[in-house]
Amino acid sequence: MRALIDELCAGVAGETEVGDGRVGLAARDDGAAVPIGDRWLVVTTDTHVVQPVEFPGGDIGRLAVCGTVNDLAMMGAVDVLGITSAVVLEEGFELDVLERLRASFARGAREAGAEVLSGDTKVMGRGELDGIVWNTAGFALSDRVVRDNGVSAGDRIVCSGTLGDHGFAVLAARRNLGFAAELASDVAPVNGLVGDALEAVGEGIVAMKDPTRGGLVGALSEIAAKSKVGILLDEGSVPLSDPVRAAAEIFGIDPLQVANEGKVVFGVRPELADALVARLREHAQGRDAAVIGTATEEHVGVVVLDTGFGRRILPEADGEILPRIC
Amino acid sequence: MRALIDELCAGVAGETEVGDGRVGLAARDDGAAVPIGDRWLVVTTDTHVVQPVEFPGGDIGRLAVCGTVNDLAMMGAVDVLGITSAVVLEEGFELDVLERLRASFARGAREAGAEVLSGDTKVMGRGELDGIVWNTAGFALSDRVVRDNGVSAGDRIVCSGTLGDHGFAVLAARRNLGFAAELASDVAPVNGLVGDALEAVGEGIVAMKDPTRGGLVGALSEIAAKSKVGILLDEGSVPLSDPVRAAAEIFGIDPLQVANEGKVVFGVRPELADALVARLREHAQGRDAAVIGTATEEHVGVVVLDTGFGRRILPEADGEILPRIC
Repeated sequence: MRALIDELCAGVAGETEVGDGRVGLAARDDGAAVPIGDRWLVVTTDTHVVQPVEFPGGDIGRLAVCGTVNDLAMMGAVDVLGITSAVVLEEGFELDVLERLRASFARGAREAGAEVLSGDTKVMGRGELDGIVWNTAGFALSDRVVRDNGVSAGDRIVCSGTLGDHGFAVLAARRNLGFAAELASDVAPVNGLVGDALEAVGEGIVAMKDPTRGGLVGALSEIAAKSKVGILLDEGSVPLSDPVRAAAEIFGIDPLQVANEGKVVFGVRPELADALVARLREHAQGRDAAVIGTATEEHVGVVVLDTGFGRRILPEADGEILPRIC
Repeated sequence: MRALIDELCAGVAGETEVGDGRVGLAARDDGAAVPIGDRWLVVTTDTHVVQPVEFPGGDIGRLAVCGTVNDLAMMGAVDVLGITSAVVLEEGFELDVLERLRASFARGAREAGAEVLSGDTKVMGRGELDGIVWNTAGFALSDRVVRDNGVSAGDRIVCSGTLGDHGFAVLAARRNLGFAAELASDVAPVNGLVGDALEAVGEGIVAMKDPTRGGLVGALSEIAAKSKVGILLDEGSVPLSDPVRAAAEIFGIDPLQVANEGKVVFGVRPELADALVARLREHAQGRDAAVIGTATEEHVGVVVLDTGFGRRILPEADGEILPRIC
């Protein structure tokens, strides 16, 4: 059913033609790009339904900013022109919580350098909505558009930091587990980090994706399929925090399948991979950056994990393993 | 409570500065406008929560397109560059209904000449959401921005057609009333109509607003307050269909307080009012267009109804008289 819904809604105006090198809905990239003069207007939208609305390291307000700012950044558009903010509330939603979320949203927008241009609020009756949903759309002008399909065999895969933090933080908060205190979501705007990366290695970056829903495996599977390569992941190089390793064992969930909200996966020309990692590590958000894999000619569209003892295919999660994680 | 929520969320990033003649969130216009080169990028967003999702004359898909396209048009931006579409569904939402909504959305987008650029779908669990909510954001480039605050005493108020149709159609559908068949929502993109109006009288149009939530009285009250004028409405000139008159009596609700989704209210220089009406009437959506009032120096911020027998103030509705109408 989810696959069908996805099909229906992703193709919500399947009739839409996208030519002229534009990037439209059919490309299913992180956003769309429309030429304006000799630049690109990059556009994206996301609705956030995370539950609980406040979790260690963040909340739905911060997530609403970052989800959209980061999708723009993944297209190479790091200077945000503006975002829109549309909130739907359940009647009776606690006003002090709302005020905290509002303040967090505003802080996130300032961090990202994103002006909030247009807003909307709707209220649904008690029991008609579980709390709050928060949509943002974002706009940015960019000289260049980075796609998610430009990887060739031999290119390296770089990750900007530890993986799984957001997903497990939300999950632990939801189940009210004691060790939640050690877990914290990574939710943050990455446009500054991506700006540094683009400045450092420019055209050497051939693909970018933020590993949100579906986690690292989801993001890499998409890059692999669109780029028509396989991706060989070196398990030992993948950065994971100790609390995430612990949570992964307790929940029995692969941290590489879990959502991140402040990380970036890059496809990069092999000769520039080390320079990219070095530059990322100079940034507070990138200090755990690492080369984690290589694109291959074989296993097109598939992510293969090299454990050091052998290799196995990492399948994409079938549906959402964690509902309402973002 | 609603007023407080409105305050909180409209000012969701109250820190946002809007200078340089830009139109930002603080202006609470139908959208925002940011300069790009010598033109304006106009941006708006709306989430639609109408219940039922299908009603005579339209559905939530068509509404999602029109709500946003019309807000852009109200800023003078009639050539839509693109819209985003973000749907949140309750698990188990009927797929044949969803397919009809999708098709209706696509038809509406084609009618409006709006390309759907970016989409998102989230699913909430059963009982976590009453059916579906649908957010759209829209953006357009425009040479000129029409505000909602440019009316001076003596200017005329023109309405593009009959009022109250959408609100009563939804209400009748909701209550499953027999005479619902005679009522139909006016939901339609008005950017074509507005384009004609701007072509005909150009700078003569000093304010535009679509009378959605809060109806005609809400729209005119806002224009009056922002323009620092009063507005004297001539009751006999206000176009109302017979089914709406009947429904208004049955429900005891003033049709001037009820949402429209395919109508425009103009403030226009007095010498151009007749020319505007004439041009509107050439358009299928404007055949009932009429001059319905005049801006006055007295009663600043207030709408006064001249019934022919006397005058009375039309207060803005206190909160939403019809929840989930759009």
